[in-house]
Amino acid sequence: MRVAVGIDLGGTFIKGAIVDEQGHLLVKDEVATQSVRGSEWILQRIIQLTKDLIVKSGVDASFVTGLGIGIPGFIDSDLGVAIEVINIGWHDVAVVEPLQTALHMPVYMENDANLAALGESFAGAGRGFRSALCITLGTGVGGGIVIDGHVLQGASHMAGEIGHLVLDPQGAPCNCGHYGCLETVSSATGVVRLVHEGIARGEVTALEYQQFTAADVFAAANHGDELAQQVILVAAETLGRGLAMAANLLNPDVIVIGGGMARAGEILFAPVRKSFQSYALQRVSQAVRIVPALLGNDAGVVGAGKLALYS
Amino acid sequence: MRVAVGIDLGGTFIKGAIVDEQGHLLVKDEVATQSVRGSEWILQRIIQLTKDLIVKSGVDASFVTGLGIGIPGFIDSDLGVAIEVINIGWHDVAVVEPLQTALHMPVYMENDANLAALGESFAGAGRGFRSALCITLGTGVGGGIVIDGHVLQGASHMAGEIGHLVLDPQGAPCNCGHYGCLETVSSATGVVRLVHEGIARGEVTALEYQQFTAADVFAAANHGDELAQQVILVAAETLGRGLAMAANLLNPDVIVIGGGMARAGEILFAPVRKSFQSYALQRVSQAVRIVPALLGNDAGVVGAGKLALYS
Repeated sequence: MRVAVGIDLGGTFIKGAIVDEQGHLLVKDEVATQSVRGSEWILQRIIQLTKDLIVKSGVDASFVTGLGIGIPGFIDSDLGVAIEVINIGWHDVAVVEPLQTALHMPVYMENDANLAALGESFAGAGRGFRSALCITLGTGVGGGIVIDGHVLQGASHMAGEIGHLVLDPQGAPCNCGHYGCLETVSSATGVVRLVHEGIARGEVTALEYQQFTAADVFAAANHGDELAQQVILVAAETLGRGLAMAANLLNPDVIVIGGGMARAGEILFAPVRKSFQSYALQRVSQAVRIVPALLGNDAGVVGAGKLALYS
Repeated sequence: MRVAVGIDLGGTFIKGAIVDEQGHLLVKDEVATQSVRGSEWILQRIIQLTKDLIVKSGVDASFVTGLGIGIPGFIDSDLGVAIEVINIGWHDVAVVEPLQTALHMPVYMENDANLAALGESFAGAGRGFRSALCITLGTGVGGGIVIDGHVLQGASHMAGEIGHLVLDPQGAPCNCGHYGCLETVSSATGVVRLVHEGIARGEVTALEYQQFTAADVFAAANHGDELAQQVILVAAETLGRGLAMAANLLNPDVIVIGGGMARAGEILFAPVRKSFQSYALQRVSQAVRIVPALLGNDAGVVGAGKLALYS
């Protein structure tokens, strides 16, 4: 038996797990990130979490082949350095070397969206498919591309940035500095923004008397709110077009959609699939399945474990 | 020394060459395809061309490791079958088995756009880069993606179809059945169409009194024709946006632009690069070079040879 440690570093929590060769989690745990304490303290937390997980799992340390860690920002995996991690205030922090020295095992680093994609591809909705495009609908739209079991990294670790396809150059401003990126429409943020725009235009909606989230918009749509239904249709159709573009380039076997919005089910997936078909080449469309993610918040640690097990 | 036979099957000519391990051509030749004579006759032509090339090259047959062949249509490389090749009227033609039987060497098949990309990546403008997106501007816009020396095939051999990114859903109809694909604007066909549209709107151009090609449009633009200049700017800006989308997904080290239009030089490349930068993520843009192809019409046979040498 071989296992690996999977770590998913987030702005709020550090998640960790012991992952086996089938992608199952033997144990998992999480601790608060407390980013204000700085990078050295956080690395110590990761080291302690790792040791605790190994002990809890009951697995002999000699079976632990390594540690994989997902970083929520820009990384240089050759140097083992986190270049810029805005959420936790990191800038040029060496990650791989201090963890390897303290833990005496090989350490592999990747960005968190790519590891979530790798996790879903390895042991989730993408299992058994040769190539997968995995996207996460959250505050933004993240993405990762997995081909033959490996993450496509690209020249500067930026591959998979489907959220920044400029679908409408006259569209809303995006955090990246451009306009009309996919994630300005088809993210949780985008859905909330579009409802606010509808309200400003004078459209009637049950949502106008409350603070609301994307989940509230989906709930309202399920209760027949027309503006909410319109907005979800726009978000879904836009997503379908973006996915069709990505699929015409990548011709993936499966597209896995995760994140909070993906839990909405067919109210989202049905129009996404319809829009996808009307923009993708027929041979591309026929070859692909569009499915919801299966691993939820565990995707990152599963992918981190997979990275360490099979690198 | 190892060499391979590279064959590029086209609608008009069958090109062939003996390719060495550096991607140099020892000899090359071409014969008319004469597609009306049917697939058996054409396969015999390829067999004879191969035998002649080996003799002409003076290389001992024992050094010939195999044959690669590019097919201008849809293929199934696992089965070794050309599924549909509209240009030469093929439908479900077995290619690999009859060639292997007649020539007693391994035969590898790929579509022609992918082999042109592989050729440029191996021994042309993409040489030395880990990942390349190679596009060809011709009647349409073809593309191929090469990562670590291998063509990205995709689930149904359709990867790299950048010409069918739907950039403007309200745009002109495309041969693929959709509207506003990149190739409706940024191909030779697209450039000619846009000039005709300008003429129909009553714009003045030196081109309106003649039959003209995309090459004529570039020549007119170089002589100060305003409509021709406008059209090339639109084609270049649209191409830049499509390439930026592809680059945000793939994060390639190099983008190689080939085909007749690419010979126009900076009148095309300068606005393509500018548009690319305004739509690509900064870290993607900083990591990539956009360069003209180097191998011209030889890219296909070089790629075919590379496929046979290193599969």
